[in-house]
Amino acid sequence: MASVFDPERFRENISNIAPRLERYLADRSTRGLDLVDPAVLTKAARGLMTTERDRIADFDADRLNQIVDLYTGTGIHVYSPGYMGRQFSGVVPLAGLVDLVSSVVNQPSTFYEAGQLPNVAERLMAEELGRLIGWDPGRLAMVTTSGGSLANLTALLAARNRAFPGMLAGGAAGVRDGIPAVAVSEEVHYSVTRAAGVLGVGERQIVRLPVDRSGRVRADRVAPALDAAHRRGLRVFCLVASAGTTSMGAFDPLAELAAVTRPRGIWLHVDGAHGASLLVSRRHRDRLRGIEHADSLAWDAHKMLFVPAPCTLLFYRDGAAARGAFGRPPGGRGASYVFDEEPDVYSALDSGDQNFECTKRPMIMPLWTLWAVYGPALFERKIDRLCATTRHAFRMLRAEPDFDVLHEPEANILCFRYRPADLEPSALHRLQLAVRHRLRGDGRFFVSKVDVGGVAALRVVLMNHRIGTAHLAQLITEIRTTGQRVLREEAAAPGPRAERSPR
Amino acid sequence: MASVFDPERFRENISNIAPRLERYLADRSTRGLDLVDPAVLTKAARGLMTTERDRIADFDADRLNQIVDLYTGTGIHVYSPGYMGRQFSGVVPLAGLVDLVSSVVNQPSTFYEAGQLPNVAERLMAEELGRLIGWDPGRLAMVTTSGGSLANLTALLAARNRAFPGMLAGGAAGVRDGIPAVAVSEEVHYSVTRAAGVLGVGERQIVRLPVDRSGRVRADRVAPALDAAHRRGLRVFCLVASAGTTSMGAFDPLAELAAVTRPRGIWLHVDGAHGASLLVSRRHRDRLRGIEHADSLAWDAHKMLFVPAPCTLLFYRDGAAARGAFGRPPGGRGASYVFDEEPDVYSALDSGDQNFECTKRPMIMPLWTLWAVYGPALFERKIDRLCATTRHAFRMLRAEPDFDVLHEPEANILCFRYRPADLEPSALHRLQLAVRHRLRGDGRFFVSKVDVGGVAALRVVLMNHRIGTAHLAQLITEIRTTGQRVLREEAAAPGPRAERSPR
Repeated sequence: MASVFDPERFRENISNIAPRLERYLADRSTRGLDLVDPAVLTKAARGLMTTERDRIADFDADRLNQIVDLYTGTGIHVYSPGYMGRQFSGVVPLAGLVDLVSSVVNQPSTFYEAGQLPNVAERLMAEELGRLIGWDPGRLAMVTTSGGSLANLTALLAARNRAFPGMLAGGAAGVRDGIPAVAVSEEVHYSVTRAAGVLGVGERQIVRLPVDRSGRVRADRVAPALDAAHRRGLRVFCLVASAGTTSMGAFDPLAELAAVTRPRGIWLHVDGAHGASLLVSRRHRDRLRGIEHADSLAWDAHKMLFVPAPCTLLFYRDGAAARGAFGRPPGGRGASYVFDEEPDVYSALDSGDQNFECTKRPMIMPLWTLWAVYGPALFERKIDRLCATTRHAFRMLRAEPDFDVLHEPEANILCFRYRPADLEPSALHRLQLAVRHRLRGDGRFFVSKVDVGGVAALRVVLMNHRIGTAHLAQLITEIRTTGQRVLREEAAAPGPRAERSPR
Repeated sequence: MASVFDPERFRENISNIAPRLERYLADRSTRGLDLVDPAVLTKAARGLMTTERDRIADFDADRLNQIVDLYTGTGIHVYSPGYMGRQFSGVVPLAGLVDLVSSVVNQPSTFYEAGQLPNVAERLMAEELGRLIGWDPGRLAMVTTSGGSLANLTALLAARNRAFPGMLAGGAAGVRDGIPAVAVSEEVHYSVTRAAGVLGVGERQIVRLPVDRSGRVRADRVAPALDAAHRRGLRVFCLVASAGTTSMGAFDPLAELAAVTRPRGIWLHVDGAHGASLLVSRRHRDRLRGIEHADSLAWDAHKMLFVPAPCTLLFYRDGAAARGAFGRPPGGRGASYVFDEEPDVYSALDSGDQNFECTKRPMIMPLWTLWAVYGPALFERKIDRLCATTRHAFRMLRAEPDFDVLHEPEANILCFRYRPADLEPSALHRLQLAVRHRLRGDGRFFVSKVDVGGVAALRVVLMNHRIGTAHLAQLITEIRTTGQRVLREEAAAPGPRAERSPR
């Protein structure tokens, strides 16, 4: 066993793995996804596993190298300019190295005692980013958590407990004054609607707020919707707005929404998983105008701050609300192993009573290190470039007669359809799906799809600052070529699927 | 910006950081915790941040090195034999390198498309570990999630939805046939009781099952407790047992509990965050006798399988139950960006509809890689050694007249008190707290504390296979010396705190 933990072995392994990662980082070829059949990949992976069971297998550098090669060779290629499909990115490579340090020192960040620098770094980043939000630094609170979905759940829980303080202890019996309900944009992320089911609110008690064609909540429709809900006996305790919807990157009108929620005592939560990072950009932060009036904000640094996933920051305007999510500190019986009965200067920084995790990865460290080493301008430059490139893509696509662009991009997400002039309307939906799948498998581009108004659209999320005009022109050409090929094949062999209507 | 993403820069940074980690790994000195005042550490950390805001700061290797040194120099020292306080460990260093690869390739594991090898590796580990549990491999399901607390929450949610299928959509109005309730050991982890509050069940609807002196649920008291709950109108839908309690590492009698829950249709969830790993040990797996009858099992690989935190595996005996946690796949409106309307061979491996996370770290990769490279014997050897050392510590402490050992260790957790013959009973509680704090600050050992029967005890969790008899003897001596010093100081200057009773 000693050799397994040997620092020399560690050094040798680094010297094998590092050049592989360097080559990976240096590969800027435009490519889609090498989507391998799971059965084939399973067989390959199983073949790399030692069959030794009775003793510790001798270390085999070849085996390790093959594992690393299989890992880097499959899945999305986040550094390729062909990668345009998802909201996580080719990270700043230094962030990966900080994660290496984190994984070796293994200091969870839920308790100061165990992870001192991570806890301090969380406070420093709360200060830096809180300033951009515009909240009172002496009053706000920030907790890190494992992804935007959890951040949304945590914020909704805090809001639920503020409005229905008896529910934590009493469950349904603890509810007074109306049926708990939440109001959300029709375009809200699925984690929010799901949270209503998790928290005992019930998905039927979700009030859907209509959106305009760009995917933004229509501010003028909010008060009537809330009034109607009230008449049905619902008590809306939280309104969830999006700062960057997942589908189209649309920013809800926060100032206008706050003007409706505040007088009614409704908690305004902003799901800024994607778009909160625009606060770092002087050019684009106005998209979040009104954020200072929100009660909480979920912010994924692993999206537009370019660190490894997950690194989510959940901000509360009022720190006391953060402690309300889980009620009183869960001390006393059963938890005396982590919670001190007499808080001191150290445990004052503990966050275990404010997030779902007990043992939590020190996810702030890559972000704080990049911020410390390069300053905010690194993030601002990259955000500005991505938004500019997306704007450029919008103009290019709009100029193509056989493409429909569905909205003006507000950030770096753009939805459009390939729609040649002679296309049957009923074939539009399936054509987009077919194009996406072909591109993914055979082509040089990985794009995603999304339903807009019930009909599929192609969607690009430009996360790579190396994407330029030439790549976008290639993408357009490849979509057109692929689309034409799909249509030719279907015309030659019309199957039952070809007649299907769009959903 | 180009230089920030430059592979050359990456190589240079590795060559700076790697030797630092090597030295860190090579340092086996016995030491406690260098607990720094948060204000002091904050000042030091802030001093390492560039003040450049308008442009990207020039890279400064010194700055980075100082950050890494501050990181490795503070917090717990998981590779030191003096580290005995928590359940996460000095990981197998190779696991950290796999995390480096993960952070660079940044392939989330919630969807096969994005992270192909991680998804396949999850299936392979489900197969390997599922075999040890003894469940039907064709029927079980496993999802990874960000920590044991989330795994417990997810399992309770699945159990709630099976018993009260109307609750997801209807909330409280969807509840039929009795008031939802859960039964838990008095020693259950706080995440479980907290989950009742989160899920709309309410903490008041928790039925507490009494434990014996070792912290195990008393099987003979379970049926009467459930009957009494039934008479109060409660419908217990889930019983949560512990396979390794946090306080004392006690294993509940699973076979006996299953004999009570099964005929009543109650879901048996086992929180095996700490102890499930004993299944890998032929010598110790009998501690989980009866696990084959459970419905779900939470298993933290970042505890006794020695990988970086978090890496939690949630197993379900019946895979259909896994899909019940969040109800129908959250497709349709709002989530068409990730969920396909027509599942294919690829999306069949997606797990996004089975866990709280949307973007999820490929946390299985360090575990699978170690398993592939070294085989199960690596884990078995280390587990066996840790349990043997803890047994040895038990015998040593029992032989000391001024120490009380509170239980025979079942795994690698041991609770005891320093109790010199002339000690006032009322001073026992505070003496343990004082000893722990002194040891942590000035001494060479980091131990934790826990309340047992309302009185504080010292607690060691032996996670480091390098801990031997000499370290244990040192620990005993240091506790005694420290305890005597505390008592002398209090006798010399009796303050108001010295008279306080134990809680």
